[in-house]
Amino acid sequence: MKKATIVGGGVIGGGWVARFLLNGWKVSVFDPDPQAERKISEVLANARRSLPSLYDKALPAEGELTFHSDMGEALAGASWVQESVPERLDLKHKIHAQINELAPAEAVIGSSTSGFKPSELNEKGARVIVAHPFNPVYLLPLVELVGDADTCENASDVLRSVGMYPLTVRKEIDAHIADRLLEAVWREGLWLIKDGICTTEELDEAIRMGFGLRWAQMGLFETYRIAGGEAGMKHFMAQFGPALAWEWTKLMDVPEFTDELVDLIAGQSDAQSGHMSIRELERLRDDNLVGMMRALKKSGSGAGGTINAHEAMLPTPEAAELPVTVNRPVPQSWTDYNGHMNEAHYIEASAQATDRFMEMIGCDADYIAAGGSYFTVENHVRFLDELHEGDLLTITTQVLKGEGKKMHLFHRLHGAEGQLAATVETLLLHMDLNARGTSLPSEAVADKLASYAAAHAGLDKPEGAGRHVGQRG
Amino acid sequence: MKKATIVGGGVIGGGWVARFLLNGWKVSVFDPDPQAERKISEVLANARRSLPSLYDKALPAEGELTFHSDMGEALAGASWVQESVPERLDLKHKIHAQINELAPAEAVIGSSTSGFKPSELNEKGARVIVAHPFNPVYLLPLVELVGDADTCENASDVLRSVGMYPLTVRKEIDAHIADRLLEAVWREGLWLIKDGICTTEELDEAIRMGFGLRWAQMGLFETYRIAGGEAGMKHFMAQFGPALAWEWTKLMDVPEFTDELVDLIAGQSDAQSGHMSIRELERLRDDNLVGMMRALKKSGSGAGGTINAHEAMLPTPEAAELPVTVNRPVPQSWTDYNGHMNEAHYIEASAQATDRFMEMIGCDADYIAAGGSYFTVENHVRFLDELHEGDLLTITTQVLKGEGKKMHLFHRLHGAEGQLAATVETLLLHMDLNARGTSLPSEAVADKLASYAAAHAGLDKPEGAGRHVGQRG
Repeated sequence: MKKATIVGGGVIGGGWVARFLLNGWKVSVFDPDPQAERKISEVLANARRSLPSLYDKALPAEGELTFHSDMGEALAGASWVQESVPERLDLKHKIHAQINELAPAEAVIGSSTSGFKPSELNEKGARVIVAHPFNPVYLLPLVELVGDADTCENASDVLRSVGMYPLTVRKEIDAHIADRLLEAVWREGLWLIKDGICTTEELDEAIRMGFGLRWAQMGLFETYRIAGGEAGMKHFMAQFGPALAWEWTKLMDVPEFTDELVDLIAGQSDAQSGHMSIRELERLRDDNLVGMMRALKKSGSGAGGTINAHEAMLPTPEAAELPVTVNRPVPQSWTDYNGHMNEAHYIEASAQATDRFMEMIGCDADYIAAGGSYFTVENHVRFLDELHEGDLLTITTQVLKGEGKKMHLFHRLHGAEGQLAATVETLLLHMDLNARGTSLPSEAVADKLASYAAAHAGLDKPEGAGRHVGQRG
Repeated sequence: MKKATIVGGGVIGGGWVARFLLNGWKVSVFDPDPQAERKISEVLANARRSLPSLYDKALPAEGELTFHSDMGEALAGASWVQESVPERLDLKHKIHAQINELAPAEAVIGSSTSGFKPSELNEKGARVIVAHPFNPVYLLPLVELVGDADTCENASDVLRSVGMYPLTVRKEIDAHIADRLLEAVWREGLWLIKDGICTTEELDEAIRMGFGLRWAQMGLFETYRIAGGEAGMKHFMAQFGPALAWEWTKLMDVPEFTDELVDLIAGQSDAQSGHMSIRELERLRDDNLVGMMRALKKSGSGAGGTINAHEAMLPTPEAAELPVTVNRPVPQSWTDYNGHMNEAHYIEASAQATDRFMEMIGCDADYIAAGGSYFTVENHVRFLDELHEGDLLTITTQVLKGEGKKMHLFHRLHGAEGQLAATVETLLLHMDLNARGTSLPSEAVADKLASYAAAHAGLDKPEGAGRHVGQRG
């Protein structure tokens, strides 16, 4: 099992802990703060309720988490070391010297610094790369990598294996890329507040009701490419480029950082959301992120593409007597106001089981592209027990009949303790997608289906199959 | 029927046409461009496939769209006039003078200007307010309003009635709020490209893999409030405010707008997404926006709150012999790779029908909050015909049995031409949510359910009810 050592356990360090741990890594933490364990456990609680919800497969079993007051002990056997101590260069130099001495020679040593360049971090002889993540680290994919090219390449593979998106910066520069953009908006925003053009809440609405929604999926240049229309990016720049010369922004100047400005902003922020605790805001943020990222997963845009790529790397459960066709936690986004899995998602899960079983008999993406598929004709669902957010849902699939055009399946949905939570009996017919009518499957598909049908023929007919709604006894 | 006149029919004008038309307004267009009708029809095609997908109720029937070469004819009877001509002050002055003369005196006259202040627009005696929307206007809620306070207040009511989010700017300023922030990022971005720190694609990834996802739901200050942790906004500012004095950004300077810079950016943008047409990019953007906005609808954050507020204003269909419990278009996000409505969404739609029927018998949000509800025990679904993106889906609900703890319903899902697309037979039991067991409903709920059951008792038992999966004949 791979091991990561996290040096410095605040919100960012805790996010790194969660990212590695929930992807099956062993994680050791070095942080002299007596509150470190409590702080990290809070970040982990948030991560456990949100990160698995991004995927339609189960993540690996959680790794082991340990806390150390001895840095050498913490670093033993680590293949990744991540430093997230406060943003002071002298402190970073001191910590990096210790890590250099005690960490395995082959370990990647990343710094979460948002501002310093590798040349500054390494001026005392350390061998650190910048690996700058974004809060919440357990959900947002982006990590900016800056430094030695070979190390960054190795680091990219590791980061992709824990579901992140490494972006290697071509030349070192203060604050890398994203924080330079954030800094520009932050300064302009402070001026707008200071001059009474808007409040913090109004400024946030100006972002999230408009261009924020564009940026979450496409970023800046791609959005403008579309704005340019069929004439393309050159047309856009011809039209809007000259506006650059206008003296719109106040950015030539930095507003004076007075107590009055701090009070104005803190007061407005309290009015905006002082009625919610930070914990509540974090959960709202995470639920929104999961919902939006799952929406992007459907199109594969941006963060959705990263999730799809990571999911393809996750292991598929092994076959048992009855094949396991789904093995995944119940996402928060599948639950209702009452915390139960919503009935539509019982069908979504059983449709995933059907899709997986179709793959297993060779009715896969290529087969479908060639014009064959199975379409559902009927479902009968019995709801037997509640399923909740985070429960590990396992579905087994039994073939009741598999001959000719027909495929008659019986899915059993099991909850975390193995209890039967629902059954879905489903009848499908094979279709010729070009002729838009029913047809026989290919011989290869028919043979595999028949072999499952034969293997399952010896099993008892499931309790609950062949029943109509409301049937007694 | 209310009427809006759109003066200038490009991408922004076309977006305004779609916003009003799909909300049931009559819309007249004045634009001397012979291509205007074609351009607007393309925007409308995009809007028709995406805007209705945000809602779980049908939007009003589309209004009538007319094109005019005579401005007086176009303006007759309009209560909203929206000017979206190119960004030249002399041109705007000329058009505003004509509108002032020909438009009804009580009409709101909005300008889509992204840069000019009302004092500039009105210096020749016009009575225009700034009503600055964001592309795509038919999906993004934000409209910045600047100008006369009473007019802005009236305008806000109108904009909310077509599902938009009016943000009244407290003091006029060049470029209002959002475009000042965009301008700051645009300038910094151009420097990063020019200096070879990253390409346009890498810059877009730095946004959409990280802070873009945060901004779509919470904006800037709320995100930083969370980053400050329990200690709040003051703590955040104490920690990060001083970084303002660092000379990070290049914003003191405007990069020279040379042909080389234009070619560099246009070339990188072509490499990034030259393989997709603008039309394909628009549809990808819109599908992503709909998916993300529907995710936000669940929490009510940002644009999701605006959708919920608008949906509550939309009319509920009238009762017929069998009550119509769902009447809505099939969202794009409900369809599969093959363009059909996915089987899970048949259940989602029938669950909406059940929820609506529960409301009709008094088992509403208050009743549920007080501890009573109905839980689904079984569903039997028969898939009879395909449903596609944009089809108007109507569900009627028949009570098969409604006594004691039991509620046995039969939903018929009808497609756009009235054809029967599916039936869902569903059995529910009344629950005491506090005792976590079955119980009798309140007398009021029982009485209303019984009255429906009695009214439906005279109807034939539906074909397809009481059947098990695979039953013949």
